[in-house]
Amino acid sequence: MTRQELIALIRKKRSFLCIGLDTDLSKMPQHLKTLEDPIFAFNKAIIDATIDLAVAYKPNLAFYECYGVRGWQSLTRTINYINETYPGQAFSIADAKRGDIGNTSQQYARAMFDKASSGLEFDAVTVAPYMGEDSVKPFLSYPSKWIVVLALTSNKGAEDFQFYACNGTRLFEQVLSKSKQWGSQENMMYVVGATKAEMLSDIRKIVPDHFLLVPGVGAQGGSLQEVAKYGLTKDCGLLVNSSRNIIYASTGTDFAEKAREEAGKMQKEMESLLG
Amino acid sequence: MTRQELIALIRKKRSFLCIGLDTDLSKMPQHLKTLEDPIFAFNKAIIDATIDLAVAYKPNLAFYECYGVRGWQSLTRTINYINETYPGQAFSIADAKRGDIGNTSQQYARAMFDKASSGLEFDAVTVAPYMGEDSVKPFLSYPSKWIVVLALTSNKGAEDFQFYACNGTRLFEQVLSKSKQWGSQENMMYVVGATKAEMLSDIRKIVPDHFLLVPGVGAQGGSLQEVAKYGLTKDCGLLVNSSRNIIYASTGTDFAEKAREEAGKMQKEMESLLG
Repeated sequence: MTRQELIALIRKKRSFLCIGLDTDLSKMPQHLKTLEDPIFAFNKAIIDATIDLAVAYKPNLAFYECYGVRGWQSLTRTINYINETYPGQAFSIADAKRGDIGNTSQQYARAMFDKASSGLEFDAVTVAPYMGEDSVKPFLSYPSKWIVVLALTSNKGAEDFQFYACNGTRLFEQVLSKSKQWGSQENMMYVVGATKAEMLSDIRKIVPDHFLLVPGVGAQGGSLQEVAKYGLTKDCGLLVNSSRNIIYASTGTDFAEKAREEAGKMQKEMESLLG
Repeated sequence: MTRQELIALIRKKRSFLCIGLDTDLSKMPQHLKTLEDPIFAFNKAIIDATIDLAVAYKPNLAFYECYGVRGWQSLTRTINYINETYPGQAFSIADAKRGDIGNTSQQYARAMFDKASSGLEFDAVTVAPYMGEDSVKPFLSYPSKWIVVLALTSNKGAEDFQFYACNGTRLFEQVLSKSKQWGSQENMMYVVGATKAEMLSDIRKIVPDHFLLVPGVGAQGGSLQEVAKYGLTKDCGLLVNSSRNIIYASTGTDFAEKAREEAGKMQKEMESLLG
């Protein structure tokens, strides 16, 4: 999906909501657990219930890998369901935090973008910047595909290294300044945690136009108003992720309906913020 | 596998060789490609041919993920083959470079260590430090399991952020100093690229006793002599990885035999370095 198509989707749905599919068997409604592929059944119901409210879906790969081969089957079914049932109607992000030396990152890129090889095709993948340019660039050779580079994350451990400062420039700022030269605002986004919303103004000085993927609104404590205040651009420039608040809004048979209600509340708030 | 068991294995085999299973269909002998699972067949032959020469095997997960569900099947068969056929005879490392917020890293840890959940059980997993303590700690709650934290990698891009210096302390040194407090030399190792062997003496000042996993000997240009000179400790303290030089020593039907020859050369050199 191109940047223009993503922006058009945001305008059409009046939403910049990304729903995180951190699908956990132990938190899932009881009645799904006897199905052949409960994780896919759950995801399908959530997607069907929210497709007009969310512009993006973000499966968190750890929640699939922890079930090994079966988990990868659920992941494959999920992304194929989105691509086949709702083509062009949602931006998909593999939250995988990958990154390795060049020839290895190339294989990770195939895994996420090359359906003929892996059976999966996402629009974007999250990548970790620690290993530098050649660990990131192989992901950028796929037309209309994106990387979302970790800049400032929403967890406590973000302080351990991301704030490591040289002459007043913190590592996450160095990551932004340096990495933005490797691609463009047409194929790169950044992860910026909502728990540090006021820092979005510092970040916007370095990357005024790039899309930011903002986790941590809701369960992790960030505020949507704050994020919008500091992060919104003329093209929106934000994807705000919510996972647990939406997908586990109910653990009963009404889970999809309740997920829709929660997603709807966020969409309404986003609509008013988009003005 | 405990540290004592690993050291005993190194003494018994007179080797600190780790063989990287970066198994690539396009580089594989033609006669294997028609098999049902060529990647597993290739790995099995390499393992059988080298089990007395190598102390560790390191499947590189990207090379499996790029084939999606089928790739995870090959990976699962490979690790189960090692564990079932050669129990206690090799240390296994999932080269996955994972790392995410706490509840997500917990799922990655299950994926790599909890066979009942994922069908896989490695001894160790490589982790990326960018997200800090809570992204790393969940991996440390499994007894006798290890993490291998990225410190100084062997690729060119290592210079982009790993050398970012604050008052003369480079980021990779900060990663070593800080992260070593999260676990112990019984459950933590570090990745240190062989292309920067002279830096091993700086690194040994910070982590004198931790095992170091050293990639980049051979194909990436590092020298085993140099690595041993600066990195060896009284307990060895090194696992030196070689991938392409060994596993692609021949692309003919003699690939396993040639792999054994190459592994044997390294083992002989290591034996003399261990003294």
